[in-house]
Amino acid sequence: MKLSITVVALVAASASAFSPSTGLRATPVGTALQALPEGVKPIVIGLAADSGCGKSTFMRRVTSTFGGEQCGPLGGGFGNGGWETNTLVSDMATVICLDDYHLNDRGGRKISGLTALNTAEQKFDLMYEHVKALKDGKSVMKPIYNHVNGTLDAPEKIEPTPVIIIEGLHPFVDERVRDLIDFSLYLDISPAVKLNWKIQRDMEERGHSLESILASIEARKPDFDAYIEPQKEFADYIIEVLPTDLDPEDKKTLKVRAIQKKGVPDFNPTYLFDEGSEITWTPSADKLSSPAPGIKLAYRQEQYFGNDVAVLEMDGNFDNIQELVYVESNLGNTNSKFYGEVTQAMLSLADSPGSNNGTGLMQTLAAFAIRELYNKKAATAKLAANKKVAATA
Amino acid sequence: MKLSITVVALVAASASAFSPSTGLRATPVGTALQALPEGVKPIVIGLAADSGCGKSTFMRRVTSTFGGEQCGPLGGGFGNGGWETNTLVSDMATVICLDDYHLNDRGGRKISGLTALNTAEQKFDLMYEHVKALKDGKSVMKPIYNHVNGTLDAPEKIEPTPVIIIEGLHPFVDERVRDLIDFSLYLDISPAVKLNWKIQRDMEERGHSLESILASIEARKPDFDAYIEPQKEFADYIIEVLPTDLDPEDKKTLKVRAIQKKGVPDFNPTYLFDEGSEITWTPSADKLSSPAPGIKLAYRQEQYFGNDVAVLEMDGNFDNIQELVYVESNLGNTNSKFYGEVTQAMLSLADSPGSNNGTGLMQTLAAFAIRELYNKKAATAKLAANKKVAATA
Repeated sequence: MKLSITVVALVAASASAFSPSTGLRATPVGTALQALPEGVKPIVIGLAADSGCGKSTFMRRVTSTFGGEQCGPLGGGFGNGGWETNTLVSDMATVICLDDYHLNDRGGRKISGLTALNTAEQKFDLMYEHVKALKDGKSVMKPIYNHVNGTLDAPEKIEPTPVIIIEGLHPFVDERVRDLIDFSLYLDISPAVKLNWKIQRDMEERGHSLESILASIEARKPDFDAYIEPQKEFADYIIEVLPTDLDPEDKKTLKVRAIQKKGVPDFNPTYLFDEGSEITWTPSADKLSSPAPGIKLAYRQEQYFGNDVAVLEMDGNFDNIQELVYVESNLGNTNSKFYGEVTQAMLSLADSPGSNNGTGLMQTLAAFAIRELYNKKAATAKLAANKKVAATA
Repeated sequence: MKLSITVVALVAASASAFSPSTGLRATPVGTALQALPEGVKPIVIGLAADSGCGKSTFMRRVTSTFGGEQCGPLGGGFGNGGWETNTLVSDMATVICLDDYHLNDRGGRKISGLTALNTAEQKFDLMYEHVKALKDGKSVMKPIYNHVNGTLDAPEKIEPTPVIIIEGLHPFVDERVRDLIDFSLYLDISPAVKLNWKIQRDMEERGHSLESILASIEARKPDFDAYIEPQKEFADYIIEVLPTDLDPEDKKTLKVRAIQKKGVPDFNPTYLFDEGSEITWTPSADKLSSPAPGIKLAYRQEQYFGNDVAVLEMDGNFDNIQELVYVESNLGNTNSKFYGEVTQAMLSLADSPGSNNGTGLMQTLAAFAIRELYNKKAATAKLAANKKVAATA
């Protein structure tokens, strides 16, 4: 049995009016790919998320959990003699952005009149073929969607790594791709939070008008609801980001919920204090200090699209990441290797967005769950290989 | 230093128009008093509670926690050659009913026109003198209020035991008595629950009319509010019994709150999961089954009469006392000597009222806290005695 973890963003090989350039990327420059061990298959993780939702931070948390020094753009990146790429590689993992499977470039979409959210603008056949090839341990030549120019650039070579992550707008639309995915995540930013973020970035920092912001959100909504949102149903782990419940006037503090599907192979949902129960918890201020409006955690058993889920919630911010070890000590099934590893992982990315709230915590817990999933599948593969050797001897 | 635990109900030696008979009880019959060890002083526990509130069950939980085979009425009781007594004795503890310090008998109260709730109907001087004497290791001759006839009977001899419990309407009214009490408890049955209990007992079982029940409650209320209720302020441990919050239609299920004062010497409040925090917990139905309307626990930090208190709550009933060990495993500072001792204590009194809900649990936890208090004070006394011996040698 072959095994490895693959985070794959796939481009469907359907015919496109705007074919990518034929100049192919030959050899990755400045990368440190983990040679896929003989007989091991990658595992494939899917992450569905809208643009501008903190995916890149999330991906950094995942890749850093697998260890290794090297983590950066495939080929070393545009500024280091490489090319303009969306692909992130580390020792263990490859993160493929599904925008690379856009059917048309920006000009093409002006002709089609469709948004990139529309599934008609995505090459699902190629996406499927690439994920399948990578999971079979084969390298692929993947197109590149250039976010700067809006063009489809010369393909780059993607080698299979133990973990392949595909992230973007449509990882769970195609049933064939879903079947290849070992664990599926959905980053669900609530409309209210999206608006607050957009106001903060586009209005406060870039000087756009509130009207233009509201108009752009309104324009995007129908396609988002039609093509992105329905994928929630297929996710094993949904990180829901909502406004705080602790103060109705507070527009910046977040309540973050990790909605964890039960019964997923090799995945045991993280719990608070007592598995299978319902809990709300306001930590002692002596042990975990937090700015107004305070901090509150919860653990609930719910239904999500007809599935049993365990929900872990954190509302509010904490002042000091080091004190998070107090929260960690009351969590079960964190998939950490040692006491305090969750807190250590948060500290190692202390400057990243969300490191002082539930966003960072839930992303870190998701990253640990993915590592555990990989370890379990690798152990199963090794056991099977040993049995085969024993039977042959 | 002398030390022992005394549960004392004291009769004040003030002049009374209706003096008790002069025939004195000489020697207790059929009792098994623990001889008070040399140099040990009793500890005094006060319990304030209205009549018909389950005090006797509570006292059984306390005395049984101290172990020993013998527990029964002083002198063996009226049916066993003894006399009509309100005093309960065990190997370690004596429970004195404060009704024995009534100023007047039933006939006298008809003349005075006052209820037994009125502090003018209580002999606080005698009560104080008796508690002081017992705490000093001396025996006293205590009057007896005969609840059957409403008469003041011949006094009985009370020997000091390691634990003296005084229980009744007015344990915390007299400041001198309060100063002698090492730990004070208040059993606070909410008006709604009192009404439900009275309806169940007097209407459903004894055929009284609802009007007469409401009238009797209404008649008692002013004196209760004036003379009993204000003692709450002086309690270290209040067991509050309320209607369930889980179903507004449910008139039988109880929510019970243990309000535990912080900073009381030798007493560490019991907590749920995490000391100093705020928690609500609905246990997993797989681990603790409960009839409708379910079960819910909570742990809160509150203010009570200006004091910091830690509140432990249980709302609802459980089906099986044995499963309570799951709740116990998530409690801290239970003062148990071994894992599961709280559950074992509940099981040993399984047939007593409240053994399937928070009443039994909080009373058992209070009993364990009293035992721990005694053990700590005994250890301190022993240490002081050893030091004295060492200094003399």
